[in-house]
Amino acid sequence: MNVHKIAVIAGDGIGPEVINEGVKVLKEVAAIAGDFSFQFTYFPWGCEYYLEHGKMLPDDGLEQLMKFDAVYLGAVGYPGVPDHISLRELLLKIRKGFDQYVNVRPVKLLQGAPCPLKDVTRDQIDMVVIRENSEGEYSGAGDWLFKGKPEEVVLQTGVFSRKGTERIIRYAYELARKTGRTLTSISKANALNYSMVFWDQVFEEIGQEYSEVETNSYLVDAASMYFVKQPERFQIVVTSNLFGDIITDLGAAIAGGMGLAAGANLNPERIYPSMFEPIHGSAPDIAHQGIANPLAAIWSASQILDFFGHEVWGAKVLDVIEQAMVDKKMLTPDMGGAASTEEVGDEVVKILSALQ
Amino acid sequence: MNVHKIAVIAGDGIGPEVINEGVKVLKEVAAIAGDFSFQFTYFPWGCEYYLEHGKMLPDDGLEQLMKFDAVYLGAVGYPGVPDHISLRELLLKIRKGFDQYVNVRPVKLLQGAPCPLKDVTRDQIDMVVIRENSEGEYSGAGDWLFKGKPEEVVLQTGVFSRKGTERIIRYAYELARKTGRTLTSISKANALNYSMVFWDQVFEEIGQEYSEVETNSYLVDAASMYFVKQPERFQIVVTSNLFGDIITDLGAAIAGGMGLAAGANLNPERIYPSMFEPIHGSAPDIAHQGIANPLAAIWSASQILDFFGHEVWGAKVLDVIEQAMVDKKMLTPDMGGAASTEEVGDEVVKILSALQ
Ligand SMILES: CC(C)[C@H](C(=O)O)[C@@H](O)C(=O)O
Ligand SMILES: CC(C)[C@H](C(=O)O)[C@@H](O)C(=O)O
Repeated sequence: MNVHKIAVIAGDGIGPEVINEGVKVLKEVAAIAGDFSFQFTYFPWGCEYYLEHGKMLPDDGLEQLMKFDAVYLGAVGYPGVPDHISLRELLLKIRKGFDQYVNVRPVKLLQGAPCPLKDVTRDQIDMVVIRENSEGEYSGAGDWLFKGKPEEVVLQTGVFSRKGTERIIRYAYELARKTGRTLTSISKANALNYSMVFWDQVFEEIGQEYSEVETNSYLVDAASMYFVKQPERFQIVVTSNLFGDIITDLGAAIAGGMGLAAGANLNPERIYPSMFEPIHGSAPDIAHQGIANPLAAIWSASQILDFFGHEVWGAKVLDVIEQAMVDKKMLTPDMGGAASTEEVGDEVVKILSALQ
Repeated sequence: MNVHKIAVIAGDGIGPEVINEGVKVLKEVAAIAGDFSFQFTYFPWGCEYYLEHGKMLPDDGLEQLMKFDAVYLGAVGYPGVPDHISLRELLLKIRKGFDQYVNVRPVKLLQGAPCPLKDVTRDQIDMVVIRENSEGEYSGAGDWLFKGKPEEVVLQTGVFSRKGTERIIRYAYELARKTGRTLTSISKANALNYSMVFWDQVFEEIGQEYSEVETNSYLVDAASMYFVKQPERFQIVVTSNLFGDIITDLGAAIAGGMGLAAGANLNPERIYPSMFEPIHGSAPDIAHQGIANPLAAIWSASQILDFFGHEVWGAKVLDVIEQAMVDKKMLTPDMGGAASTEEVGDEVVKILSALQ
């Protein structure tokens, strides 16, 4: 039997609460399917670990994770530990360390999901954002000069390599070709006169090899506007690390809220484990109350199923999420319901097992 | 009599069409008010000029503008001239050259303006974004190495100076104190480990001097989400050049569309002329058809009135824009009407003169 070894980093705040439900769902799917199973190993890394050990994870943390087929991450960050430590040293470290250079974030308005936009129907919000996930604005390069002096100046350098830019854009073109959908690049060459001019050039170059793919190119400011005004413009979207960060939160906002947004951090070559996570944060304000929405974590569980080739099951889990929202019986407060995190997870499991 | 000397750079595409209406409105206001007047001088700079002269404006362009009290700009950019040339060499050159380090962009849902958000009332969208306008991500610093080689790498450096960061944040605190409104900083320290950590630090430092101002600090991704989900969180907003660019287009989207968004580029010390513009682009697709919405240009005209101390008139022009939208008689196609650019301008003038 096919055993998928998953490293679980539940993390901080609501992380453990929502991941519990995702794990529950994965176990149920495996039990029903019968021809594969999951083996979960938990790592207590995160801000609590940091407060005790002075680091977010052990020095050999990545090495430990190498033994797994995938990482399932809850959320990172908690008051008391500066974000630029907690996030950079755990989440971003794994993304970069494992060369998870593709961040796949579906922006899809599911049936029953609350949409804050007027006059928008479900079929108008159905895209996949392919975000560069390993370099660019997030490279961490920079300097802080003349600290505390009047001439103090701080530099932050985005690093866009030929290799890094080509591979993400190529990934997106492949996906667009495979799915027969349009591809939209989001950049900002009119202001970022090196990085984004280069980005646009590579987008065009690679495009020569995919003449059958219909393409668009938008400035990030215009794209933000269109996300709200005409989201149907977008099908497959490819963009840089920072722009992808912004645009996918905006995508989450129009497609039902952060409680419903999942992301896969892929190393497509499968040399390193890939990582799956709800894209919401650790939400300290509602942690430990059992009211966090687990649907984003469950959606990432469905991405895990896809990743291991169980697409039929991945799709079923999405269907079940939709059904739970349409039924409106078991939803957390952020979605207008009164159910607990656990009750939502149980409901999903119940619908799943009734499917047979 | 007080004569305000305005340099008009109508620019490209729909620029001249919408600026005409703004000029019309300013002239009418001056005629009614009687105690001040405008003197408009036109500069034919832009992409056509570029195609003829190989530059967007003459070498002594900024010098020529120095003789004016303000610049009124339409729009820049046209197919055939790369954006990173047209925009950087005209619009951004003026912003930077004249040290217009404050970009003031109201995001206010006027009466009668179309809002794409469900369940949002007018009072929930009423903010002013103060965008850093002279440095940061737009500094233009960078390099492009090993061109065409596999090791090709492109660097784009954001430059955040103590002076530049302090003055914009201080401007925003002053405005928040003066108006008694909350101040929200938008940054991204969890990923941009130099520039935004510095930004957050300065925001806190300066805040010590303004203990009476209530503050918030959001990550740019979260802020984008809240713009759509809970815009009432924001009153005065201060942010960097790039984030301000993105967030104000998003603001325009929720507050009636780009046809209604204006921006003032201020040199608060008034050593250099300030510049006023609708924030939409040159919209080549609808240029020369007389259907562009002039309301954003007219809103910027109202900002010009404010800037010269005629706030009462500035407010009246805004009222008239509202009335025109409420009447719904004379609106351009983008707002669901059938009027021409000129008809909308005429209507605004008509309502203005009837006010007396
Ligand atoms: C937590 C933060 C560093 C991260 C990012 O900016 O990538 C998050 O916002 C995300 O989108 O996954
Ligand atoms: C045209 C472009 C360079 C400009 C900017 O990015 O600042 C525009 O989008 C704006 O917001 O004024």
